[in-house]
Amino acid sequence: MVPFTVTILGSSSALPTLTRFPTAQVVNLNDKLYLIDCGEGTQIQLRKFGLKAGKINHIFISHLHGDHIFGLPGLISTMALGGKKGELHVYSHSELKIMMDPLLKFMHEMEDFKVVYHPLNFRSRAVIYEDSKLSVESFPVKHRIPCCGFVFREKQHELHLRGTEVEYLKIPIRDRVALKRGSDYCLSDGTRIPNSDLTFPSDPVRSYAFCTDTLPRKQIIPVIKDVDLLYHEATFCDDLKDLALKTYHSTAKQAAEIAVLAGVKKLIIGHFSSRYKNEKLIVDEARTVFANTLAANEGERFEL
Amino acid sequence: MVPFTVTILGSSSALPTLTRFPTAQVVNLNDKLYLIDCGEGTQIQLRKFGLKAGKINHIFISHLHGDHIFGLPGLISTMALGGKKGELHVYSHSELKIMMDPLLKFMHEMEDFKVVYHPLNFRSRAVIYEDSKLSVESFPVKHRIPCCGFVFREKQHELHLRGTEVEYLKIPIRDRVALKRGSDYCLSDGTRIPNSDLTFPSDPVRSYAFCTDTLPRKQIIPVIKDVDLLYHEATFCDDLKDLALKTYHSTAKQAAEIAVLAGVKKLIIGHFSSRYKNEKLIVDEARTVFANTLAANEGERFEL
Repeated sequence: MVPFTVTILGSSSALPTLTRFPTAQVVNLNDKLYLIDCGEGTQIQLRKFGLKAGKINHIFISHLHGDHIFGLPGLISTMALGGKKGELHVYSHSELKIMMDPLLKFMHEMEDFKVVYHPLNFRSRAVIYEDSKLSVESFPVKHRIPCCGFVFREKQHELHLRGTEVEYLKIPIRDRVALKRGSDYCLSDGTRIPNSDLTFPSDPVRSYAFCTDTLPRKQIIPVIKDVDLLYHEATFCDDLKDLALKTYHSTAKQAAEIAVLAGVKKLIIGHFSSRYKNEKLIVDEARTVFANTLAANEGERFEL
Repeated sequence: MVPFTVTILGSSSALPTLTRFPTAQVVNLNDKLYLIDCGEGTQIQLRKFGLKAGKINHIFISHLHGDHIFGLPGLISTMALGGKKGELHVYSHSELKIMMDPLLKFMHEMEDFKVVYHPLNFRSRAVIYEDSKLSVESFPVKHRIPCCGFVFREKQHELHLRGTEVEYLKIPIRDRVALKRGSDYCLSDGTRIPNSDLTFPSDPVRSYAFCTDTLPRKQIIPVIKDVDLLYHEATFCDDLKDLALKTYHSTAKQAAEIAVLAGVKKLIIGHFSSRYKNEKLIVDEARTVFANTLAANEGERFEL
């Protein structure tokens, strides 16, 4: 299978700490990089973890709080100075363009490089990006300001050919392509050989869901159902659930309950309040509800 | 003498590297903090080096290139979240307000906290800030866009009283204040005792000059003459002086020549191009011209 990974660049809540930068993650599918959120210092973290800023062509921004966007001016500026050409696509609330334009209009290096803004839909789920390997769907979550989560889904892979049979029958290349896509095969005498005799099943498709900042929200369950990996914010432990409710955040227990309801394979939690000096307390709480929980630590790479 | 220090938070040129954040420095005079420039990650560096963001009330911005300002939204946002009240004074090109306003208008925490912008004069030197202990003067340097240097000068200290003589004559408190400021003292019989019989000289006043980004510029010599500490950019070694000229930067040799001409006591150089993996080459070059040269490394604190 081609590599499909998520690298954590930052996972603090509003205030960065000595060990946590603000939110940013890189999804890497077969060496194509997609950035989710872009807190201050994202370009520094990319460099630190050996990820090339210039390879990012798509950025998904959950919402317009500073700890999710203040790294954008520096990142875009560095891309331009690095000679990036073409278009950078940014999926976000439409106000982002209003915030970024005054900062970027001073950049003379941006002649062959353009930022294209795609407004998100904060009312219902929507496929906002597609290529031959991947689709990205946004879905509303519940925060103080409009906020979206994202699901990255691999597209259905091709079937694997049964080499011996295909060679024996001398099936031409163009027909092999059709076989990989599920067609049966007809011999010259008209005999139809069912696809399943000539192929093995395709690799399973993998999926990743990103949910921050948000209250725990059961409405998202159908969207994130059965994903391989779920990132869900867990700003507080459950003893502060009233504060979580007031600030439109989730507790570790609530994040884990969402993971259980959605039947995900693995849960990563992050966006920890700076009051927690380390993540043990908060991860332990989540594990009482959903055992396969890990903390989103900087530089960590999760393989799907 | 009260502490007067300069702490380097960042000293890269346009692109941050694994060891250098973009430009930012903190001047600390007697526990009052003044920030010069604010590259991306400044708030993170402040925290790392134990300097409280909330104690900064004055920020001096040399020019509006991203590597000198992209840390401002995050820093101001963190100040507001930390409950900072009153006014934050920012001295910069007037366009900065236009760049910052769209980013800050989303911040609901700023009800009791206000950013006051003071436009710089890019044509001639000007005293832009004064309090009882310090004055700050700006002066134009020469970059691709309008850019200012800054000189921080301690104000004249009070004279030290000669304890024994003052006690013997039983000089009242209010007259001691006048003595410290240089007055003579009259006895009840009308005899005038000269100030120098009752005081020792005051501590020397100290000064710090900050010059980046700029071509080497002899016009600044009268402004920075005899400062105790000069920070001057040295983006390149002298073999790249044509590139330095083209990009409106200085070489290490040129920075050192400015230090010699101005008769400063110590020179710090920084803003090194990311092509230099360490600073040895560039510092060695400067030292051939001005021996007392040091590199501006992150976290280093220079005492005046």
